[in-house]
Amino acid sequence: MADNFQGDKNKVRQILDAVKKAGRDSLTAPEGKLVCDAYGISVPKEGVVSSAAEAQKLAASMGFPVVMKIVSPDILHKTEAGGVLVGVKSAEEAAKGYDTIIANAKKYKSDAHIMGVQIQQMIKGGQEVIVGAVTDGSFGKLVAFGLGGVLVEVLKDITFRLAPATKEDALSMLDGIQAAEMLKGVRGSDPVSREALSSLIVRVSQLVSDFPEISEMDLNPVFASKDGAIAADVRIVLDFAAKAPRYRPPEDQVLASMKRIMQPASLAVIGASAEDGKIGNSVMKNLINGGYKGKIYPIHPKATEIMGYQAYKSVKDVPGTIDTAVFAIPAKLVAGALVECGEKKIAGAVLIPSGFAETGNMDGQQELVEIGRKYNIRLMGPNIYGFYYTPANLCATFCTAYDVKGSAALSSQSGGIGMAIIGFSRSAKMGVSAIVGLGNKSDIDEDDLLIFFEQDDNTKVIAQHCEDLKDGRAFAEVAKRVSRKKPVIMLKAGRTSAGAKAASSHTGALAGNDKIYEDVLRQSGVIRARSLRDLLDFARGVPILPTPKGENVVIITGAGGSGVLLSDSCVDNNLKLMPMPDDLDKAFRKFIPPFGAAGNPVDITGGEPPQTYANTVRLGLEDDRIHALILGYWHTIVTPPMVFAKLMVEVVEEMRAKGKVKPVVVSLAGDVQVEEAAQYLYEHGIPAYAYSTEIPVAVLGAKYQWARGAGLL
Amino acid sequence: MADNFQGDKNKVRQILDAVKKAGRDSLTAPEGKLVCDAYGISVPKEGVVSSAAEAQKLAASMGFPVVMKIVSPDILHKTEAGGVLVGVKSAEEAAKGYDTIIANAKKYKSDAHIMGVQIQQMIKGGQEVIVGAVTDGSFGKLVAFGLGGVLVEVLKDITFRLAPATKEDALSMLDGIQAAEMLKGVRGSDPVSREALSSLIVRVSQLVSDFPEISEMDLNPVFASKDGAIAADVRIVLDFAAKAPRYRPPEDQVLASMKRIMQPASLAVIGASAEDGKIGNSVMKNLINGGYKGKIYPIHPKATEIMGYQAYKSVKDVPGTIDTAVFAIPAKLVAGALVECGEKKIAGAVLIPSGFAETGNMDGQQELVEIGRKYNIRLMGPNIYGFYYTPANLCATFCTAYDVKGSAALSSQSGGIGMAIIGFSRSAKMGVSAIVGLGNKSDIDEDDLLIFFEQDDNTKVIAQHCEDLKDGRAFAEVAKRVSRKKPVIMLKAGRTSAGAKAASSHTGALAGNDKIYEDVLRQSGVIRARSLRDLLDFARGVPILPTPKGENVVIITGAGGSGVLLSDSCVDNNLKLMPMPDDLDKAFRKFIPPFGAAGNPVDITGGEPPQTYANTVRLGLEDDRIHALILGYWHTIVTPPMVFAKLMVEVVEEMRAKGKVKPVVVSLAGDVQVEEAAQYLYEHGIPAYAYSTEIPVAVLGAKYQWARGAGLL
Repeated sequence: MADNFQGDKNKVRQILDAVKKAGRDSLTAPEGKLVCDAYGISVPKEGVVSSAAEAQKLAASMGFPVVMKIVSPDILHKTEAGGVLVGVKSAEEAAKGYDTIIANAKKYKSDAHIMGVQIQQMIKGGQEVIVGAVTDGSFGKLVAFGLGGVLVEVLKDITFRLAPATKEDALSMLDGIQAAEMLKGVRGSDPVSREALSSLIVRVSQLVSDFPEISEMDLNPVFASKDGAIAADVRIVLDFAAKAPRYRPPEDQVLASMKRIMQPASLAVIGASAEDGKIGNSVMKNLINGGYKGKIYPIHPKATEIMGYQAYKSVKDVPGTIDTAVFAIPAKLVAGALVECGEKKIAGAVLIPSGFAETGNMDGQQELVEIGRKYNIRLMGPNIYGFYYTPANLCATFCTAYDVKGSAALSSQSGGIGMAIIGFSRSAKMGVSAIVGLGNKSDIDEDDLLIFFEQDDNTKVIAQHCEDLKDGRAFAEVAKRVSRKKPVIMLKAGRTSAGAKAASSHTGALAGNDKIYEDVLRQSGVIRARSLRDLLDFARGVPILPTPKGENVVIITGAGGSGVLLSDSCVDNNLKLMPMPDDLDKAFRKFIPPFGAAGNPVDITGGEPPQTYANTVRLGLEDDRIHALILGYWHTIVTPPMVFAKLMVEVVEEMRAKGKVKPVVVSLAGDVQVEEAAQYLYEHGIPAYAYSTEIPVAVLGAKYQWARGAGLL
Repeated sequence: MADNFQGDKNKVRQILDAVKKAGRDSLTAPEGKLVCDAYGISVPKEGVVSSAAEAQKLAASMGFPVVMKIVSPDILHKTEAGGVLVGVKSAEEAAKGYDTIIANAKKYKSDAHIMGVQIQQMIKGGQEVIVGAVTDGSFGKLVAFGLGGVLVEVLKDITFRLAPATKEDALSMLDGIQAAEMLKGVRGSDPVSREALSSLIVRVSQLVSDFPEISEMDLNPVFASKDGAIAADVRIVLDFAAKAPRYRPPEDQVLASMKRIMQPASLAVIGASAEDGKIGNSVMKNLINGGYKGKIYPIHPKATEIMGYQAYKSVKDVPGTIDTAVFAIPAKLVAGALVECGEKKIAGAVLIPSGFAETGNMDGQQELVEIGRKYNIRLMGPNIYGFYYTPANLCATFCTAYDVKGSAALSSQSGGIGMAIIGFSRSAKMGVSAIVGLGNKSDIDEDDLLIFFEQDDNTKVIAQHCEDLKDGRAFAEVAKRVSRKKPVIMLKAGRTSAGAKAASSHTGALAGNDKIYEDVLRQSGVIRARSLRDLLDFARGVPILPTPKGENVVIITGAGGSGVLLSDSCVDNNLKLMPMPDDLDKAFRKFIPPFGAAGNPVDITGGEPPQTYANTVRLGLEDDRIHALILGYWHTIVTPPMVFAKLMVEVVEEMRAKGKVKPVVVSLAGDVQVEEAAQYLYEHGIPAYAYSTEIPVAVLGAKYQWARGAGLL
């Protein structure tokens, strides 16, 4: 069945129009059946016949068994009248059954007005499942799938995808519930038809996408068997209220603006100040001391010069073009200055000032949004720390400067989390391409950043903290494309209901249903960080790891105890420990003591000299059956931390020169000197972590998750 | 129903003896029913009556409805003969039913030999559940509980407790499955009788405990309803092979030995050496430089003096008592020296040497075990780094010395993990009372350590890394008691099947079923760490936190974004955010800007001066309805990190002086200066973490988990 399923739209349109006209907001069962028919969604077939020949023909067209029932306004107790036959198994039986029922009916009530015999497809057991659709405020239409029954309700075992869903999406839903095994046939029962069930999901998702007024749809239960999937009950709820279309500039326009904002040739600081402690002063200092090479125009009502730069009363007085304006003035002055920016055709406004939606000043923020749209100025913020873009030595922020160049582009919705990003980056010497504050997200949001970083050669990984996605659908669409090129990592705050409640009182964000976020982010290839530290560790480690070429992971460890914990972490992070082939096992054994354990983990044992690490790691990198290495180092007098670190860098670089480029991560167990060794390894392209067996494996796991999502594995 | 349930042991003994005599290893259904009867485990009641009066009486004694069936060798088709009545609902109906059945039978076959009418309790729907028992190599008898049905099998939703289980244990099992809500009545169905179901679990657990030869038992399904719990099918498997009793010295003896080992007045170093690089030299240096004040006796075959201490050829040559002997000699010499230690009545041998079970030398290790038992010497190791006991300035190890005194006692089964413990401790300035290597655990294991640390006033928290528990039952029994006094934290490696496989090739350990560990550790009040870092962070943070007096947690944050993530973490860690009473809300609002959010989290907003933190935290500590505080600090120019840290310490200490002693943890978001602030806070009794919203809440969560398990909340 093709992905781009075409239903009979005209037919559905007619039905919905009639319902709208009738002033109803849901469909009757017969209307629901007609809608399903128009989209090829199986419901029990039925029809009324008035001869044995017709009965034979209709029943055969449905497939057996069927149920046959007398249709007569005069016969209320059909069974008593001998007017019902259940489990009719063949065309012949159906023909004979027709005659029997008519005869019985006449015998029961000779003067009954007989309209015919109804033939209905009999639904055989199979597995009860639920297929449905909902409309989410951020993501729009979503299709849902789960098993039927109370237990599943209790366990909330349901999965969502953006509608319309592709066949591949639909198939992933069948595997995406906890109880997926139930569909594969357990205790000798037949597996369900994945083809039929996924087709049903695709059709439902297409139907709700074609008709935005279908706000909810429930097929519950659907009987899924090895032969098909039939919806026994259909419920369709409508909402005819027109939705305001979302404001969304075309992507090329987004990119053009974002480039001018992030890589400005010239920059105005509105509210620049020479006075220590003022925000406008901090911004000026950061721009100058950070080494920004573009033009800087301080804007000040009175000053003629600030910190050596000629000052202007308004951006309109500045000769030549200005790309970006950084605002460092009180909230009440922002709108006026923004209009001037508009008239000056500035591409973007970095709105540091607070005092807008986060303080309840919704109107003030809306005013900015309207000015922005009118003049086509994109707004970052308000209520932000600003942003850093290190390739341009640009620190457009009032926070401390940061200049360690690297390939991670981070953003945060919250200023506090932004400060944590800066602190961690500095402490861990994480190279970044950008750090961006999004604050109230009145305009620029995560997908605008994705569009810029997608084409930014300085950026290899994008890591975002967010509390809500104002347009989840737009984000998902962009993320799906971008994540195939570069890993996109997200820390979605407000995961829990308590968190969501806190989020709703912060930055005006309303957290959505977390399960929807979970599924849509995965569908979009986004790696979800579970904690702030995960976000930071992934941003730091993932970009320096080469992409693995296959799923075979091998652990080489000096500490057997680390090997066990590393193995646990592999399972937790969905990494596959390669079963060790005999010849490789023998090859590893040559290098390790007789009481060491080959297999996987390769346990070289604790007392070994540096050469044993080198020999086994070289072998692991050389053999093409192995795709990634996890090393467990144990600090001993024989192999001190820095000796190990330098040797590993040598071996990895030697093998890289030979084209053996594989991800390697390291867990270091030892005294404090392992911290220096970890930093050395990291700086040489090997993510390494002291006192942790979990973090290195989680970082490798994130890289694998990305590579799988991007279709590279 | 009393916890200490007494079944009819004699009756069961008779049945099992007969089965054994018959050479069978499982019970027939009737035997199973008799065993159940003897322990008051409900199975469908049944009996045969031969009069209407008897029918009336028996049916009434069973409870209604009942099923009635003719019993006659001459009537095969009972239903056809009118010999079956289903759903008989009253005593009267039963009496009448008897007459009807007899009459029908006589009508059907006048010469039939009628033996009576069978009356059987009719099991009404209710919820299908499974109650069972298994025998685990480490934990012994365990009782199991889960829902019935295929879906539950697929989801592996089952829970275990050590048998015999108390009523409280059994009740916790009903709440301990994912699908617990099913038992409470969903979609209008009745809740099951918790009394009946928990009694059934207690009885099964008592039965398998009373009769060790019952190796497996399955009641599947059990029909649980609001009226009772009836096992419809009973399966009992026997294993008559006698188990060797576990070697287990009495606890007072364990404690006496452990005290001499951990707090020795005198210590021998067997294999002491003056030569740099030798293990026996490192041990001597650590003892001397560590500041150990007891007597040190170097043992060496030739030397008369080592590092200023008189040397002896054998421990037997030493005048006076020796408490502990540290071994630093090759494996092959250990047994001989150990015999001499035995003759010298040394309490414990710290067996650093490797070359035993971990290298496949099982016999060599067994030899040591036998010598140890013969002479009553307890063995630590072999294959270990030794141990540290800081209150005695004792570094009985070849690793680097460690002397930061504190209240965490850590142990590890693996040397590598031990090194990570030492490195982390030094780096984080974690005070420890002890760090102990257990290695091959030929003798001393985790429960021996628990017995010592339980009474050690220098220890406030016990944190253990282990790959297996050789005697899980002994551990659980001791841990249950100790954990009520001091938090016991465990990192159980080999959680996953891959991890377990790695564990089985390491230190000869075989990992058990992780779900059993999970449940039994919880039953024993042990806090389970999910990662090495968690183990270390909990060991560091938990002992310095005061015990909370209630469940009401309040978040006070400068960064709204941190507030959201902290709320998420509260849910993840099972902490309860207090709904803010109106008066307290008003009181908080007095201190925060009008656009800040009160409620919980209390969002004081980012631009606030130190005093706002002080005011709100003081209020949080003062009000007795609040039991714990989580602070989210946001680094700003107005409130720099160290200003915040010092002020918080002042406020907390001021309130502690007033008797307001509550746990406070801090998450710091900011530039690198927050690291110094975090360390300052930690050193003043406030666990604080930079760049993380998860770790502080997890540490508080661990403290709460302990307090709940210890019955303090």
